[in-house]
Amino acid sequence: MQPLTGFRDFLPVACAERNYIFAKWREVARRYGFVEYDGPLLEELDLYKKKSGDEIVRQLYEFVDKGERAVALRPEMTPTLARIIAANHRNFRKPLKWFSIPQVFRYERPQRGRLREHFQLNCDIIGEPSAEADAELIALAIDVVRGFGFSANDFVVRISDREFWTELLKIEAVPSERWEDILQTIDKSEREPRTKTRERLGGLAGPVFEILEKGGESAKLNRIIDSLRARGLSDFATVDVGIVRGLAYYTGVVFEVFDRAGKFRAIAGGGRYDQLIAQLSDNAVSLPALGFAIGDVVLGEMIHENPSALGELEASVRSDRSIEIYGVIAKEERRAVALAVIQQLRDQGYRLDYPMSPTKVPRQFQTAEQLGAQTAILFGDEWPNVAVKKLASGEQQLVPHEELVAHLVAHR
Amino acid sequence: MQPLTGFRDFLPVACAERNYIFAKWREVARRYGFVEYDGPLLEELDLYKKKSGDEIVRQLYEFVDKGERAVALRPEMTPTLARIIAANHRNFRKPLKWFSIPQVFRYERPQRGRLREHFQLNCDIIGEPSAEADAELIALAIDVVRGFGFSANDFVVRISDREFWTELLKIEAVPSERWEDILQTIDKSEREPRTKTRERLGGLAGPVFEILEKGGESAKLNRIIDSLRARGLSDFATVDVGIVRGLAYYTGVVFEVFDRAGKFRAIAGGGRYDQLIAQLSDNAVSLPALGFAIGDVVLGEMIHENPSALGELEASVRSDRSIEIYGVIAKEERRAVALAVIQQLRDQGYRLDYPMSPTKVPRQFQTAEQLGAQTAILFGDEWPNVAVKKLASGEQQLVPHEELVAHLVAHR
Repeated sequence: MQPLTGFRDFLPVACAERNYIFAKWREVARRYGFVEYDGPLLEELDLYKKKSGDEIVRQLYEFVDKGERAVALRPEMTPTLARIIAANHRNFRKPLKWFSIPQVFRYERPQRGRLREHFQLNCDIIGEPSAEADAELIALAIDVVRGFGFSANDFVVRISDREFWTELLKIEAVPSERWEDILQTIDKSEREPRTKTRERLGGLAGPVFEILEKGGESAKLNRIIDSLRARGLSDFATVDVGIVRGLAYYTGVVFEVFDRAGKFRAIAGGGRYDQLIAQLSDNAVSLPALGFAIGDVVLGEMIHENPSALGELEASVRSDRSIEIYGVIAKEERRAVALAVIQQLRDQGYRLDYPMSPTKVPRQFQTAEQLGAQTAILFGDEWPNVAVKKLASGEQQLVPHEELVAHLVAHR
Repeated sequence: MQPLTGFRDFLPVACAERNYIFAKWREVARRYGFVEYDGPLLEELDLYKKKSGDEIVRQLYEFVDKGERAVALRPEMTPTLARIIAANHRNFRKPLKWFSIPQVFRYERPQRGRLREHFQLNCDIIGEPSAEADAELIALAIDVVRGFGFSANDFVVRISDREFWTELLKIEAVPSERWEDILQTIDKSEREPRTKTRERLGGLAGPVFEILEKGGESAKLNRIIDSLRARGLSDFATVDVGIVRGLAYYTGVVFEVFDRAGKFRAIAGGGRYDQLIAQLSDNAVSLPALGFAIGDVVLGEMIHENPSALGELEASVRSDRSIEIYGVIAKEERRAVALAVIQQLRDQGYRLDYPMSPTKVPRQFQTAEQLGAQTAILFGDEWPNVAVKKLASGEQQLVPHEELVAHLVAHR
């Protein structure tokens, strides 16, 4: 009777909350000129084996289909996007600004803020090498979170550049097969004891700690911060070289969004992956690219702990689930004429419900209120008039049935 | 570079078409008082093995997960709904009217109108035994198709009752393990040579052909047709005992929606499954239930072949993908002030794009038109004024930048 561990049933309230989050995501992404795309939920396993990095590959929902293909449920959207872009980019003027709201799957231990599936808003800019694109993407990430009622007191974007670290690895002549492991160690260093990090980094520990303490500065990061400042968004951002990101394919600027109080996991994260499209297309197509993702689970937890954000969500949930009019059938012999009126009103776009079986009138009014109707229309002895009752005030009016639609539209 | 066979990439136009179909589905379902829910994409294999019928089980995307659970991608939504209802029904007043837009998966040979995945609108009524519920559900199915611009000349709902057939099987004392096979044979009889059907039915062929020729009539079907007539929808419906439906769990009234010209597969189908919730819950919960599903693939094909339906879809696709305003940065030294104005306009909800790299002005105007902008705002020598240009008429006006937001809102 229960869903699989780490998976969710979305009962109507939860589904309306999800609809609210998705609608806000879409609205803000479109303000930035992003257009929506989607890809398959199932992809060839190789798409992830090649480029996503070991951690993701270990957590794949993978299997062999009835046609002997090794396939996987998508654990993230970027490989699919890179594949689609490599195949179709000639039909589009660059830069592209694309967004998607995929459900993604990872087999890991379910815990607070992390399930085995979640939905993500993914926003990507393809074909634009300038730092202004990084700023535009980070501004969008900020506005997505602001859209739910959060301020610079609630969250911050920590911005870094992987090149701080890849430059170091080049200078220290670290063989490339060790890079991913070292970058992961730096990425996790904030959450682990220093001795453990030191042990893992060996001879690199000295220079790594030096960079972490000194912080980073570069012309590129300054341009990004300047652009955010011009937009009035600099209070939402800070430079922090400790941000590396777990995925293997990032090449340049990376960032993560955190709540200021430090109660939650990262809310969102992203960065540049200028090589990925070339790698997936065997160098047939090379386009600079960058993107970020924000998930629905941590964001939902944050909203539920912020009274004003929660208030907005709850108002949306109510209106998502409410009908406008309830048709009270007070006399069964009026059912046929009631159905004709109900059909007319629905054709006009009204949300309307009525009792499908004979039901006592007081119970019909209870149902009307429970369904969130503002108005009840009563089919009874008054026919060919219909009694129109405002449920909040109790105010009632008799309207000839032929005038009912016009009457309701006029008082909507 | 291609998606798996039978799966789709949704490039922006295709995704906007999908958004149009989903939005219409949601709108019409809500007019009927339905509320949205969703369930997991992955379920325990047993959920389908028990009740969906052999054909579906043969086509499952099934595998064993990393925790040794036998699981399957959902091939249909009804078992998930029945599971959710059995577990949660006590929290809800009956009847329930619930809808969902799941993606579902079946491993079969891809062909016209049928892929290995598609999206469905599923609408179900739970806890209502009356024939009025069947009529309400069929009326909704009709209005969902009407919503896309189709009339009674374009499509028809063929309504039947499985009890015509199960009564016969009882009278003829056919053992229950043969029922599913026989019902499938009757379901397919319209599309197969009569000799083949006769051979498969054996001794039952006589009475079956008799019922198919004579047609069916019952008080229940009459009530449904009367209710549709009261709504003004009887032109969209006909009784046809040849409709049986492929799924094993249907118990009563069943129906399918077809295009009148017979060019397409069934557009939608559904029926009563009064026993399924009890069966899945080991008789812990027993609730009458009925539902239907309409897929996005056949419906999309029909829309594309009907000029007026296509016109509505295309208008929606254009507005889904269009920005409203393009910010032309004519002088790079105006970029910072431009960004401040752009942020204000986006905060007001405008969809706005601008060039992230220095770009020649004529090319910026080209991009503005290509992105569907109605208005360009020009940041150049006129600063602190901004030139506001209507792209359709070429009409241009200078507005002080502090007044720009108010000016645009006033002329929206």
